[in-house]
Amino acid sequence: MWRAMDKRGFQQGSLNSFRSSSSDEDLMDIPGTAMDFSMRDDVPPLDGEIQEDKSYNGGGIGSSNRMMDFLEEPIPGVGTYDDFNTIDWVREKSRDRDRHREITNKSKESMWALIHSVSDAFSGWLLMLLIGLLSGSLAGLIDISAHWMTDLKEGICTEGFWFNHEHCCWNSEHVTFEDRDKCPEWNSWSQLIISTDEGAFAYIVNYFMYVLWALLFAFLAVSLVKVFAPYACGSGIPEIKTILSGFIIRGYLGKWTLIIKTITLVLAVSSGLSLGKEGPLVHVACCCGNILCHCFNKYRKNEAKRREVLSAAAAAGVSVAFGAPIGGVLFSLEEVSYYFPLKTLWRSFFAALVAAFTLRSINPFGNSRLVLFYVEFHTPWHLFELVPFILLGIFGGLWGALFIRTNIAWCRKRKTTQLGKYPVIEVLVVTAITAILAFPNEYTRMSTSELISELFNDCGLLDSSKLCDYENRFNTSKGGELPDRPAGVGVYSAMWQLALTLILKIVITIFTFGMKIPSGLFIPSMAVGAIAGRLLGVGMEQLAYYHHDWAIFNSWCSQGADCITPGLYAMVGAAACLGGVTRMTVSLVVIMFELTGGLEYIVPLMAAAMTSKWVADALGREGIYDAHIRLNGYPFLEAKEEFAHKTLAMDVMKPRRNDPLLTVLTQDSMTVEDVETVISETTYSGFPVVVSRESQRLVGFVLRRDLIISIENARKKQDGVVSTSIIYFTEHSPPMPPYTPPTLKLRNILDLSPFTVTDLTPMEIVVDIFRKLGLRQCLVTHNGRLLGIITKKDVLKHIAQMANQDPDSILFN
Amino acid sequence: MWRAMDKRGFQQGSLNSFRSSSSDEDLMDIPGTAMDFSMRDDVPPLDGEIQEDKSYNGGGIGSSNRMMDFLEEPIPGVGTYDDFNTIDWVREKSRDRDRHREITNKSKESMWALIHSVSDAFSGWLLMLLIGLLSGSLAGLIDISAHWMTDLKEGICTEGFWFNHEHCCWNSEHVTFEDRDKCPEWNSWSQLIISTDEGAFAYIVNYFMYVLWALLFAFLAVSLVKVFAPYACGSGIPEIKTILSGFIIRGYLGKWTLIIKTITLVLAVSSGLSLGKEGPLVHVACCCGNILCHCFNKYRKNEAKRREVLSAAAAAGVSVAFGAPIGGVLFSLEEVSYYFPLKTLWRSFFAALVAAFTLRSINPFGNSRLVLFYVEFHTPWHLFELVPFILLGIFGGLWGALFIRTNIAWCRKRKTTQLGKYPVIEVLVVTAITAILAFPNEYTRMSTSELISELFNDCGLLDSSKLCDYENRFNTSKGGELPDRPAGVGVYSAMWQLALTLILKIVITIFTFGMKIPSGLFIPSMAVGAIAGRLLGVGMEQLAYYHHDWAIFNSWCSQGADCITPGLYAMVGAAACLGGVTRMTVSLVVIMFELTGGLEYIVPLMAAAMTSKWVADALGREGIYDAHIRLNGYPFLEAKEEFAHKTLAMDVMKPRRNDPLLTVLTQDSMTVEDVETVISETTYSGFPVVVSRESQRLVGFVLRRDLIISIENARKKQDGVVSTSIIYFTEHSPPMPPYTPPTLKLRNILDLSPFTVTDLTPMEIVVDIFRKLGLRQCLVTHNGRLLGIITKKDVLKHIAQMANQDPDSILFN
Repeated sequence: MWRAMDKRGFQQGSLNSFRSSSSDEDLMDIPGTAMDFSMRDDVPPLDGEIQEDKSYNGGGIGSSNRMMDFLEEPIPGVGTYDDFNTIDWVREKSRDRDRHREITNKSKESMWALIHSVSDAFSGWLLMLLIGLLSGSLAGLIDISAHWMTDLKEGICTEGFWFNHEHCCWNSEHVTFEDRDKCPEWNSWSQLIISTDEGAFAYIVNYFMYVLWALLFAFLAVSLVKVFAPYACGSGIPEIKTILSGFIIRGYLGKWTLIIKTITLVLAVSSGLSLGKEGPLVHVACCCGNILCHCFNKYRKNEAKRREVLSAAAAAGVSVAFGAPIGGVLFSLEEVSYYFPLKTLWRSFFAALVAAFTLRSINPFGNSRLVLFYVEFHTPWHLFELVPFILLGIFGGLWGALFIRTNIAWCRKRKTTQLGKYPVIEVLVVTAITAILAFPNEYTRMSTSELISELFNDCGLLDSSKLCDYENRFNTSKGGELPDRPAGVGVYSAMWQLALTLILKIVITIFTFGMKIPSGLFIPSMAVGAIAGRLLGVGMEQLAYYHHDWAIFNSWCSQGADCITPGLYAMVGAAACLGGVTRMTVSLVVIMFELTGGLEYIVPLMAAAMTSKWVADALGREGIYDAHIRLNGYPFLEAKEEFAHKTLAMDVMKPRRNDPLLTVLTQDSMTVEDVETVISETTYSGFPVVVSRESQRLVGFVLRRDLIISIENARKKQDGVVSTSIIYFTEHSPPMPPYTPPTLKLRNILDLSPFTVTDLTPMEIVVDIFRKLGLRQCLVTHNGRLLGIITKKDVLKHIAQMANQDPDSILFN
Repeated sequence: MWRAMDKRGFQQGSLNSFRSSSSDEDLMDIPGTAMDFSMRDDVPPLDGEIQEDKSYNGGGIGSSNRMMDFLEEPIPGVGTYDDFNTIDWVREKSRDRDRHREITNKSKESMWALIHSVSDAFSGWLLMLLIGLLSGSLAGLIDISAHWMTDLKEGICTEGFWFNHEHCCWNSEHVTFEDRDKCPEWNSWSQLIISTDEGAFAYIVNYFMYVLWALLFAFLAVSLVKVFAPYACGSGIPEIKTILSGFIIRGYLGKWTLIIKTITLVLAVSSGLSLGKEGPLVHVACCCGNILCHCFNKYRKNEAKRREVLSAAAAAGVSVAFGAPIGGVLFSLEEVSYYFPLKTLWRSFFAALVAAFTLRSINPFGNSRLVLFYVEFHTPWHLFELVPFILLGIFGGLWGALFIRTNIAWCRKRKTTQLGKYPVIEVLVVTAITAILAFPNEYTRMSTSELISELFNDCGLLDSSKLCDYENRFNTSKGGELPDRPAGVGVYSAMWQLALTLILKIVITIFTFGMKIPSGLFIPSMAVGAIAGRLLGVGMEQLAYYHHDWAIFNSWCSQGADCITPGLYAMVGAAACLGGVTRMTVSLVVIMFELTGGLEYIVPLMAAAMTSKWVADALGREGIYDAHIRLNGYPFLEAKEEFAHKTLAMDVMKPRRNDPLLTVLTQDSMTVEDVETVISETTYSGFPVVVSRESQRLVGFVLRRDLIISIENARKKQDGVVSTSIIYFTEHSPPMPPYTPPTLKLRNILDLSPFTVTDLTPMEIVVDIFRKLGLRQCLVTHNGRLLGIITKKDVLKHIAQMANQDPDSILFN
């Protein structure tokens, strides 16, 4: 009805009904009940228990009853959605255009309306500014807290417990540059407890305290998530992708999720688990976006407009996670977003920039960089080096495919067995194992960001790291540059430790990602790649040093020249592994480009990312996020994959060949009782309306939810509407004989422009239409007669079937 | 028919018919006739004369006759397009999927087929590599030649005439660093002719030679364009936008256009006219892309796939024009492309990178930078400076709106009056005026790129430019940095000259853009903005120097500190003016970011670009490219603008309310003669097929071109098909009584899944469907009965009408 209302004179009723749709129908928590945590029990946890609880998938009867409590003209609830349902993009966009048209028309009438119109136009920009500021600040807060709490596992600052290790020694006067990590103000736990830092016992005390703190942080994180906000777990990116594609998950981006995710993210990162904060930061930024939407009518009441804002918020999230505003926008465009108009591109860019500058002004790392692992290389790379770079790409692809398979298998086990019932114990066990294995090795003990930073780093003269312990490092003849050198003892021992770290990270990350705590995948993937890259890089460097007369080296790498940068190998490896896991391409390269700041390193990065994607794609088409979407059964219609089968619309539509006929309503011959019978006997979310059952000529489409609400409303409010009243969907109802009950006119809830395809339309085109127009359902005709219906769920089930997957894995509408 | 063929068993006929579509139906010139220049007379020139020649818009009878010459089974020509028609994206994409499916299926059969399948998958990447290499090389060639020929206007190198001024003096031993522009090897024309460089007569000789060379270059350019490749004129971006949206302009991206555009671009730039090579480089890159498509079956035969390649080529073009690969991809995404799947994003990025690195290895400017005006700033900017930056944004917006209005008015005058008939004289007059006015002023005499480079440049200690002639510039106490200084005589005189240059550029560019020579708009726009920015920047700098005690300065700018960078102002001004003219946003900021390489300057650039766009949009919604598209009447459906009116499909469809009924074909009752009558009596490009005239129930849609070709083919080849033969569009034809002529079955050319909307569908949704699915036409039904048809042209005319424009300005189908 919303499409034709302008001409037909129904606009007042319907437009206002959208206006008054109550705010508890929004993605955010119900304001009045947010403090009532017992309410949250009815929120289904994301992974495990969803199959048992099918009531979330059903029709709208339950919630529409609730709606009736605050009945008022015009009918409230018409035009809103149930939880775990898919929105109708076309309808939402039309509603926004109506709203915009109304404001534009009014703006000519008065000064006040003009101001309103202008402020409406600029509200999008204001919203972006606020999102940037808020997500930048939160990112800064998370960085600082996580840094402090990570150091807390090792010791505490006596000058002030709120200083982290670095700040503590920064302020110290008792420290030389060489020993800048050791200052008297910083006390390890053994110093505090047994007053010494030497000897086996001190080591055991420190070890014990390290594990203890890790367990405490992990326990706090998982408990907070379990009790207050079950949606705060995981990276959030699969769900955000699904939400952006038009799905509704109430509370997923609400304020409790935001608060709990922010706190538990810090705890989870500090606990030393093999996880990162980058993915969850995207979720945090999207929560900010969603909550701030509530300050603006334009975005609060329109699901499509809100999703534009969320796309921009995702860009801001990546922008602060990696200090890469352009990369963030491209990430949002490439990986996360579904509907991304150009206006959103520009606004996303603005939000991403504001967020980046907010974070920079907070300066969490004290180096005016946005991330710990920013790096600048100075040495050019040689064409031959593309061979090891491509090898790293192959490694990244293999690791990505392996990780996705094993992680999904493990997550499926968690969902289907008893394991999923004990999330707290699972987290504690994994944390204990991680902490116990991590402490003895300095590369696993340090935070993963620091590890990556050290691996990316090109050794300078003043670096005290073991990785830079080359022989003769201090008698270089040249000034600031270090030529290629033979590796010293430190480098060899670092290599062994790194190899152990690599194995630990590879294994433990598989079990960590998917637990009921906030956990990102970017950083562990990058760490795996960076270690592999650094190992290969140092190997290449030594090879070039000792065998500079080999044919492959002698043209460009003489002894004593600085020709191989192991840090670049680490960065290329990180890009390769991240690409293998997430299958990002452009955004990955641009993020890495923004981390290095040099255009010349794009080619190695690109070669590795491309190889990695090809290798990983050959072993399994899905990236980790898509795999998790499928695991959870979300109705996500992938926009990247072409539908490659030859089926036709008639093979997919309902009713199937031997089923009973399609349930339809007629436009002028059914009574209220007839319609109520149809509603109670079926569970379809909408019904086509035809001229007559004989002709099967299509008039329009009416949604179950709207129908129920309207009939209930009419029975309550409209005098004389009884079960024998005839429902008219026509423009005019014929004059009725006296003593018949009054008729019920429902043309205003009828969608007069339903999408139709013919039964011989190939499914590839149907899939394309669903994707590009964002449909919920599409009617199927044959020679002008209505034949059946295809819903988004039917399409998804069909795609799953054609890919030899279980079609019942699609759980939601 | 292409949609249903899989199931119906017609695939062989139709698939092969696509295969054999002759290559002269492609965008490129007809290979055999390319040398026959007289053929080119029948190509309509782009601007002026198109209205007189309506034959290009008509049906396909003429060309289908030509097609018949190489008749073979299956019917050739079915599924191809006429010149100046719009492609059907859905059909093209389906064809590609069919092709891909066939290759994938075959790949399991034999090793050879597997190799074919893999090489098919990688051909896209190979193509991108070739495009990158070719467009990078051409850009380098153009840069080097233009540089040499620009210097040729002033003099010649006696060491070797092929050296430009800079190279000539580079090799010289007789020159100090201070006087590096004056070496004995470089002879001005007066030195060559009258053996002196001093005095008024020498000046006149140089002046005369300068104008003479300019006129010679311009004459050569315009003559070559006029004689060999009329499509080589202009920037090409409006036409490329239109082509990418699905329009066919044969020869626009052909090899003659490429060759002539490359040559004349060098001539036009060297002639000193107020134009740039950046826009035309996009055209050149797209020509490369289109020509290279011919090496790959996958792209040669599919208009949709070819357009993906062209999008990537456009990115490569911008990449080499500005040395900004990421900016190029975003430009292609934001400004040029219509259909841009993510796969294209990744490939575009690859092509853009290859092109950039090819250009860098050619190193045309000898500084390992891709553009002359790359710059690095070191001084931070202060928040207060946003005020002048926003002022520059306002200036840019005003200039953009003014330029578009006046330029379009002038181009319309050229189209409608006698003026358009004398393109050579017009070019010569404008060149003469430009050259005569330009010579006396050194800032107009130098090439515009050099001017921009000088304006962007931050003055260092060693700069010898007049713009850096500050007082006390050599007694600075600090080392390398120059503090703020009082302006010297040179700066003041430079300011005057720049002000004159600004006026000249503003006026002359309006008359230059749109002439029948290759002419880009980026560089002149940037020059205008850079001059305005530099003037303001120097003004601010002097203000801060003399009034550092003012409240606005005293907190951050003490005397002697280096607090204002006039070069940054120039860059911000350039961005603002470019934004005002083209209405680019993200891509503009990213291009500028890649030119400076510093994230901190994004905020000023963004502020200016945003202000400029808002100001310009307030004065006129269209950017220069959209304005030129409208001026030329191309059928371009703008994807950025929302359709904001309340009309319904029934208001737009044909037949109009009082028109005769829609021309339809019936599925099983019309004879060949009936159909031929319909074809000859109408000019529609397609006909709906219905069950019967009474029921008006839709069966499918058949294209006029396919119908004509099939009937002619049947009459020639199929025994006994005569005028009284009945045409069947049904699946099975009924058994015929004896002695009736044989029937003609045409179901294989019937599109069995035409798109339909109801008559009450709002036009905003119809427009959306046309845009997103790339339709040519859409049928309109009411309650299941066929009512009318909406073509893309109808939609465009309706949009024009609603915007109070002349609907007849849409010229093509």
